[in-house]
Amino acid sequence: MKIINLEDLETPCLVLDKKLLERNCLKVRNRCLELKTTLRPHVKTSKSVQITRLALDKKIGPITVSTLQEAEYFASSGFKDILYAVGIVPNKLSRLANIQQKFNCNVRMILDSVQLANNVIDYSNLNNTNFEILIEIDSGEGRGGLRPNDKLIQEISNTLYNCSRTKLMGVLTHAGHSYASNDVSEISSIANKERGDALEAVKNLLKINQPCPIVSVGSTPTMLFSSHLDDISEVRSGIYMFWDLAQASRGICKIEDIAITVLASVVGHNYNKQRIIIDAGALALSKDISANKFMPEAGFGLVCDSNTGIPLSELNVSEVHQEHGTININDKKWFNLLPVGSLVRILPNHSCLTCAGFDRYNILENNSINDFWPRTNGW
Amino acid sequence: MKIINLEDLETPCLVLDKKLLERNCLKVRNRCLELKTTLRPHVKTSKSVQITRLALDKKIGPITVSTLQEAEYFASSGFKDILYAVGIVPNKLSRLANIQQKFNCNVRMILDSVQLANNVIDYSNLNNTNFEILIEIDSGEGRGGLRPNDKLIQEISNTLYNCSRTKLMGVLTHAGHSYASNDVSEISSIANKERGDALEAVKNLLKINQPCPIVSVGSTPTMLFSSHLDDISEVRSGIYMFWDLAQASRGICKIEDIAITVLASVVGHNYNKQRIIIDAGALALSKDISANKFMPEAGFGLVCDSNTGIPLSELNVSEVHQEHGTININDKKWFNLLPVGSLVRILPNHSCLTCAGFDRYNILENNSINDFWPRTNGW
Repeated sequence: MKIINLEDLETPCLVLDKKLLERNCLKVRNRCLELKTTLRPHVKTSKSVQITRLALDKKIGPITVSTLQEAEYFASSGFKDILYAVGIVPNKLSRLANIQQKFNCNVRMILDSVQLANNVIDYSNLNNTNFEILIEIDSGEGRGGLRPNDKLIQEISNTLYNCSRTKLMGVLTHAGHSYASNDVSEISSIANKERGDALEAVKNLLKINQPCPIVSVGSTPTMLFSSHLDDISEVRSGIYMFWDLAQASRGICKIEDIAITVLASVVGHNYNKQRIIIDAGALALSKDISANKFMPEAGFGLVCDSNTGIPLSELNVSEVHQEHGTININDKKWFNLLPVGSLVRILPNHSCLTCAGFDRYNILENNSINDFWPRTNGW
Repeated sequence: MKIINLEDLETPCLVLDKKLLERNCLKVRNRCLELKTTLRPHVKTSKSVQITRLALDKKIGPITVSTLQEAEYFASSGFKDILYAVGIVPNKLSRLANIQQKFNCNVRMILDSVQLANNVIDYSNLNNTNFEILIEIDSGEGRGGLRPNDKLIQEISNTLYNCSRTKLMGVLTHAGHSYASNDVSEISSIANKERGDALEAVKNLLKINQPCPIVSVGSTPTMLFSSHLDDISEVRSGIYMFWDLAQASRGICKIEDIAITVLASVVGHNYNKQRIIIDAGALALSKDISANKFMPEAGFGLVCDSNTGIPLSELNVSEVHQEHGTININDKKWFNLLPVGSLVRILPNHSCLTCAGFDRYNILENNSINDFWPRTNGW
């Protein structure tokens, strides 16, 4: 595609800084080399084949997905080793099996109940389909998963053992509560517990001679701050490719590391209320305000200069409606600095949710857009 | 398509109750007949041609859109009279003009500054393109628009008058702050001010002999609770087709009127934490919690029986992650009543944002799905 300027883009749209993306990806690849574990990046943030290949150093590699839509999209682009990291349910088995068959790939699933193990076996027997399975472990987040010493873990293993088509490959856990802290020593201790609980679940299974070749852990914070990941076969970080204000607010990255912004236009000035109105609202930014716990000035996003990507001192998006964002100002100079029709770029609170409104990334390199990369959405 | 049961749908997905949709649409059509004004429904909630035709009593009629993507989608389906109700900016003029030309339709635009009026004139002259324009008025919301007595209104009119291709058609206002109240008398007073301010802006323009055939007002609450809409040419309500918990919490509708729900599966039970985990999270429900101001028990959505659509007493989605919703329970009976793999339906806080995650509606009639209707998303 021909090189275009930001001014030629229709707003709102996503702008992805390629240099920052590459730097972020390299840092985490190196970290995983140092940890001597496999990186199975979570593609739920980017949902883009191009970005994932870049994260995997231009290779096809193992990935983690959050929807079967992602599984299908990546499988259709040649990815063969896919982990679907949301608990499986019967109404998704047929599609998952079809993806495996159509694209000759493996879509490994997770579950945490004997009943679902039986559902999977029933489907497997009825349709002569092979499935690989991990048992989900709760390492403290309190969402999905069994406690590592739960007897049900052995029961699920025994249940799956009765069917030659359903192969238990190991365990998976996600210490998502690491996102709740901005204290590195606390995150480090959550990381060590994440690893410890995963390995305790493995021990639980080894007692009944169930081998566990796969021990899957990971969030971006715990991967970065774990003291080591010995005996852990893979980590599933994802947000590190883009970063966002939520991560910056917790000290996991710096604001200057954030690779993704929403390009928006100033559509109006409200002189009476001292407000600048932009065309990026709740759908373009999402209503996620998770940065605000530790960075209350984040609002619905920090307003940046469109050319430099650097925050414009005190400006944030203070209110959103479906297609409108409102920037409250306390100095009238901003009406001159940001005339109607001018552009701003918004740093998002939570890039996974912000990107979900868009179907493509505009790739920024050397101050202009030289490509766009599609993403998949929905289920 | 063949009739299917809810159990055969892959979750999460949208379920639209056709009978409720029809009842909601009929009520507002009748209200507009009573008010003797034209209904120009806002399609930003449904973004669906089928739903909009149903709202317009199976006719093609005037509509309001919030994005040019919607304008293009509806124009391609034969809609000819389209109002784009977000302030125009230069980077959108080319697409808007292309839509008008390609589909032989009118996409009327709004603006509130002399500078943008000049931008529109410049484009118009350069490309020999005709545009119709409304001036946006701020009737108290404090977002876009000029105060009705602002001298700039006359200045914009004079500016546009200099170009034969840019025709000022009147004024538009939106009393969006009506959503902030649950007091019918207050909403009624906001409605009357919305009408009054629009007509004051018309007077402002009549002083310089600028006619205003179009006087466009409306939000759903103000349309329902205005004492009359004399001299108002059109109203732009939209949320009434589906309703949601935000509207129910303000007494604008009843919970039983809400036509849209998210169908979700129970993917796990966390016995230690007394939580039920479902596969509808932040992307399927959105992070909008606007019902909670007046209905704190709404959480991220009320959990309903999948067959009846009736709320399951105290259950709400108390926490969301990207693809997970967490239902905290205080009675273990729910583990038996909602086994893993079972279905629930979630009433959304804000249907405009919830529906935006999905590309289709599953149409529910007589307890089964007999059709699906696509919707458009993005920009």
